[in-house]
Amino acid sequence: MPTPLDELIEALRCLPGVGARSAQRMAHHLLQRERRGAQRLARAIEAALTTLTHCARCNAFSETTVCARCSDPARDATLVCVVESPADMEAIEQTHSYRGLYYVLMGRLSPLDGIGPKELELERLLERLAAPEVREVVLATNFTNEGEATAHWIAERVRARGLAVTRLARGVPLGGELEYVDPATVAHALIDRRRLDAT
Amino acid sequence: MPTPLDELIEALRCLPGVGARSAQRMAHHLLQRERRGAQRLARAIEAALTTLTHCARCNAFSETTVCARCSDPARDATLVCVVESPADMEAIEQTHSYRGLYYVLMGRLSPLDGIGPKELELERLLERLAAPEVREVVLATNFTNEGEATAHWIAERVRARGLAVTRLARGVPLGGELEYVDPATVAHALIDRRRLDAT
Ligand SMILES: [Zn+2]
Ligand SMILES: [Zn+2]
Repeated sequence: MPTPLDELIEALRCLPGVGARSAQRMAHHLLQRERRGAQRLARAIEAALTTLTHCARCNAFSETTVCARCSDPARDATLVCVVESPADMEAIEQTHSYRGLYYVLMGRLSPLDGIGPKELELERLLERLAAPEVREVVLATNFTNEGEATAHWIAERVRARGLAVTRLARGVPLGGELEYVDPATVAHALIDRRRLDAT
Repeated sequence: MPTPLDELIEALRCLPGVGARSAQRMAHHLLQRERRGAQRLARAIEAALTTLTHCARCNAFSETTVCARCSDPARDATLVCVVESPADMEAIEQTHSYRGLYYVLMGRLSPLDGIGPKELELERLLERLAAPEVREVVLATNFTNEGEATAHWIAERVRARGLAVTRLARGVPLGGELEYVDPATVAHALIDRRRLDAT
């Protein structure tokens, strides 16, 4: 029969990137030096599991049926930005240069992992985008093969409905020196080059 | 007010080696893909916190006042091996070449972190070693500066009481090629060289 220590070590392995050895180290640390933190963690997990659901509009984690961001009348409801994860949404929020709404996919198309349009519930996204106020869909999935394929899938369906579809620009990062930026990025920066209008 | 998600992310940061970004990733993973694992983790933490204590003899985590290993009459009670952590104890057990008992320090002397003999409760170790059946103390703290200092501190006190004190041998690892082993290790292997007796 596994001891409570064995059980704790095994349970910690459900965390992403935690193998047998680091689960052991974590368990010892919690029991030896972080009993208060451990208690807090157990309670936080319970609280999150019982109180958090997905926002009916943006699919992000929320305590309420519709989250505070989606309910904010100051945001531009004609724009919906599609991201893979809550972390990506926060990355865009931190730019302070986007005032529209979001839709969080909670993943990306990944046929090798068995994640297709059905598993990602992309029909739910399309329903959300069918709201009459929506004018433009900003695709902000990652610039990986899977992120690009996901953006492509969505773009095709959304365009067919007559909505404007945009994608974040690819290009040289701020402060990037061409000499040190990888060639594929420079190539994309060339393709996506913008006309500089006289100001 | 922090949301349950913020609180979960913050609570996960008490795990060793988990920063803001990976805590966020872990929280999303638990809520999105591992709700069952998360539930199990919360329960395992609670169970471990309430049922595990330190063995009165070896100081390792135990559900009972004296752990199964310390209560095993098949083990050689004249030998006590001193290790820094439960993981080190398991590493020695896995060699299947030690049949004595253990004492787990749950740390090491580390003046810079404010961990001295008092914080490590080294008096408890000395009391344990005062048991009449103990003949030899095998020092198996790590071969780091702190582990060596800890071994040195213990060795001085234990020798004064007339017990035999030994230390794990330093040397070239099995399969190690001298050319690729670091020079300090080779130096130690020279210092600790053993006479090969005719067999
Ligand atoms: Zn929302
Ligand atoms: Zn014990």
